[in-house]
Amino acid sequence: MFESAELGHQIDKETYRQEVPTLREALLEAQLDLLESRKFPVVILIGGVDGAGKGETVNKINEWMDPRHIDTYAFGPASDEEAERPRMWRYWRTLPPKGKIGIYFGSWYSDPIARRVYGESKNEALVEAMDEIVRFEKMLIDEGTLVLKFWFHLSRDKQKARIDKLKSDSMTRWRISDRDKKHYKLYDKFKSVSEQMLRETSTAGAPWIIVEGFDANYRNLTVGKHILQAIRDRLDSAQASPHELNTPPLMASADNTNVLSNLDLSHKLEDKKYGEKLERYQGKLNELSRDPKFGKLSVICVFEGPDAAGKGGCIRHVTQAVDARLFHVIPIAAPTEEERAQPYLWRFWRRIPRHGSLTIFDRSWYGRVLVERIEGFCSEYDWMRAYGEINDFEEQLSLHNFVVVKFWLQISKDEQLRRFDERQNTPYKRFKITEEDWRNRDKWEAYETAVCDMIDRTSTDHVPWTLVEANDKNYARIKVLKTLCARIEKAI
Amino acid sequence: MFESAELGHQIDKETYRQEVPTLREALLEAQLDLLESRKFPVVILIGGVDGAGKGETVNKINEWMDPRHIDTYAFGPASDEEAERPRMWRYWRTLPPKGKIGIYFGSWYSDPIARRVYGESKNEALVEAMDEIVRFEKMLIDEGTLVLKFWFHLSRDKQKARIDKLKSDSMTRWRISDRDKKHYKLYDKFKSVSEQMLRETSTAGAPWIIVEGFDANYRNLTVGKHILQAIRDRLDSAQASPHELNTPPLMASADNTNVLSNLDLSHKLEDKKYGEKLERYQGKLNELSRDPKFGKLSVICVFEGPDAAGKGGCIRHVTQAVDARLFHVIPIAAPTEEERAQPYLWRFWRRIPRHGSLTIFDRSWYGRVLVERIEGFCSEYDWMRAYGEINDFEEQLSLHNFVVVKFWLQISKDEQLRRFDERQNTPYKRFKITEEDWRNRDKWEAYETAVCDMIDRTSTDHVPWTLVEANDKNYARIKVLKTLCARIEKAI
Repeated sequence: MFESAELGHQIDKETYRQEVPTLREALLEAQLDLLESRKFPVVILIGGVDGAGKGETVNKINEWMDPRHIDTYAFGPASDEEAERPRMWRYWRTLPPKGKIGIYFGSWYSDPIARRVYGESKNEALVEAMDEIVRFEKMLIDEGTLVLKFWFHLSRDKQKARIDKLKSDSMTRWRISDRDKKHYKLYDKFKSVSEQMLRETSTAGAPWIIVEGFDANYRNLTVGKHILQAIRDRLDSAQASPHELNTPPLMASADNTNVLSNLDLSHKLEDKKYGEKLERYQGKLNELSRDPKFGKLSVICVFEGPDAAGKGGCIRHVTQAVDARLFHVIPIAAPTEEERAQPYLWRFWRRIPRHGSLTIFDRSWYGRVLVERIEGFCSEYDWMRAYGEINDFEEQLSLHNFVVVKFWLQISKDEQLRRFDERQNTPYKRFKITEEDWRNRDKWEAYETAVCDMIDRTSTDHVPWTLVEANDKNYARIKVLKTLCARIEKAI
Repeated sequence: MFESAELGHQIDKETYRQEVPTLREALLEAQLDLLESRKFPVVILIGGVDGAGKGETVNKINEWMDPRHIDTYAFGPASDEEAERPRMWRYWRTLPPKGKIGIYFGSWYSDPIARRVYGESKNEALVEAMDEIVRFEKMLIDEGTLVLKFWFHLSRDKQKARIDKLKSDSMTRWRISDRDKKHYKLYDKFKSVSEQMLRETSTAGAPWIIVEGFDANYRNLTVGKHILQAIRDRLDSAQASPHELNTPPLMASADNTNVLSNLDLSHKLEDKKYGEKLERYQGKLNELSRDPKFGKLSVICVFEGPDAAGKGGCIRHVTQAVDARLFHVIPIAAPTEEERAQPYLWRFWRRIPRHGSLTIFDRSWYGRVLVERIEGFCSEYDWMRAYGEINDFEEQLSLHNFVVVKFWLQISKDEQLRRFDERQNTPYKRFKITEEDWRNRDKWEAYETAVCDMIDRTSTDHVPWTLVEANDKNYARIKVLKTLCARIEKAI
């Protein structure tokens, strides 16, 4: 894999001097076109062996291009705010918006490689990390991000030579850290782990570009030209959607039996019993929220369901039980301008709380496979891939001490009509019915298909859906509280 | 001050039961109107003695209103990300946008009061903190925020009675922490410090509302009704600007001598000398940025100046000297939708970096007193108050290990014309001249007045302006680098 990066590539001073001005001008122009078009963001990953000139080349790229529209990141130990979120949160929070360029040193590859090289993790952990990375990068690419991955390589001898050279010069000695020296001793191990990593994570959409790092001229020109070509190609390519989907369409179950029709919506809870149970489970939830162990985890609740299914009421009966300092409710409406410049899930990642809190989403990331699917706000390819992306997202949360509890509130079509009528006859402004509610109602069957698909594809061991029979509000609220208590109790 | 909150206010069960439904409905309606109008944000501060039912009342408000549009915050020890920014950063990052409500427990008052009560700070520190708070709240109010401040009071006897009552019941015992017991012992000290605090921070725009905390019915109704009335009044009030400004207009200096005209723009640096100095100061800057002490501070550079003054070039010559992992350049353009829903300075506060970095603003918060003043994008009152707000902002930064270095790049009107012509004759896209550049040029004199005012009012001991004679690019770049090095060196 690294053979062609051990050939001793180099470019002489004269050629370099001739080529740079043209390259530089073209890079700047491509960058400005990118900025003005705001068509896509560019994510550049920089990895490789120590002493291969990664930092110098990135500095050169910053010098050649307009540094006002490039952000370069290196990642040290996680801050305490980062440590309380899944591993990928720190990368999500720095993703460049459309039109901008983000350069990531080490990036999401550093930790898994380093842990494996230093013997802190087993091969299975590396394999898992690679899978996670491939899925993450696939998502970025599907979202339109241009992902460029550069791996700077040096042969063992060349690495030694270069480190000796840097050490011998007082101006560059500082570049050689103790860590570098340690890495050098682990050269073979590092090479074999990275080979595996590169092989498994070089995909059609985001192949690794291996750059021999010994000669600065060669290194800089190679990286510069790759960046230029990639941005230019994407800018000049036709706007057409790159994804033709040839999967069979998702269809309703042939015998009209599905997880929704199978629900017994006649469940009822009479007021007296309801009052007792409400007190019991709200008390229980309050107690759980004050458990010292609650401070070590976070609870995320998702409420989905048709209009007038009673989401708001359920949410209020949950929040009533918990001190206001502990919960936050996030109503999901149309994305803002900043959110539209980012991958779909970005606006949810940015709301992921620290530990010790209960965050309730009133509608959620499932909008992608419900309203956006049905209204055609995104392509079939986009909502089809969303199932997997959402599963990844929730898995990352649940592996990081987040309890994710998802409720689908189901009512019958008749019950919805009754509630619409009731609301329309209430002068109380809060419960007004809009045109859109009626339009959504017309699409009841399409939603039913979409909901069944959603449940089939996103009810996982980690994060199952709870279907709530919601024709009777008492019954629904108790089921929500009881489920929530059970899930938190299990985690504590 | 607390006399009327020691009268034993109470409301009987029956009255309470009758009043609540109406109040609740009106609160919900006001909240929805607020949400739809997006006219202003509401910030509710909750302070007071322990055991006075602050938490219970806030929970009740959350229950009465729609918790989806209220965020309630309590603040524990600062996270490491918060600790590396000025004290107020954690409040800025949680400010509610227009249309929403934020409830703050303790808020910015907690720390100064607690430190004084526990004898960890002197009275001067308290006075300083109060000044800072008054200015901060004035800014919020000027930005249109509705600020409501509730202080929950209990007489010494009532506090003891209430704590005993809470302790005697197993359901409420958890509410009494060791801290509460300790506070109780410090009752007199706490009362006198808070009295001072309340007196000094009760302003016309944000008076403290003192609420006797013993009787829950009285407490809840009082707070609920205050919130309702305040939101309703503001919603119903005419849209007209509340601020009539009667100050004399700012005018250009009568003798046409000012800090700009006084600059000797003929300064030049010939290429050879420039080359030497560039190497020297870029090397110096590089060295400083690698100093271990650099990791304990942050450097913020601001570049302002007329079009074509060479800001971009100066910025590039600074960034060239520093590793790309350490610097970030933030070009300031029009605010985004999320930024427009917040106070003016919010979009700069959100970009304040952690320690160990160099952040360069290409244009900055000074837009308020330059382009916004001249183009009339904000009222005279708004840009007049901006001087003080900016000084506060920069003072907070500089007191928190931020080195703020501000450059005004000045060129002559002739030189600008020469550069415009040159750019227009360059096919190179990067340097295109827009209509707006020409329009700005027509306002040269107005800008000159605004710049002189800006320098007079915001060049402070903490954060002085450096005026850069920029007709000669060599000279300007060296002056920038040299100044920057000197400022960092002094701080290290």
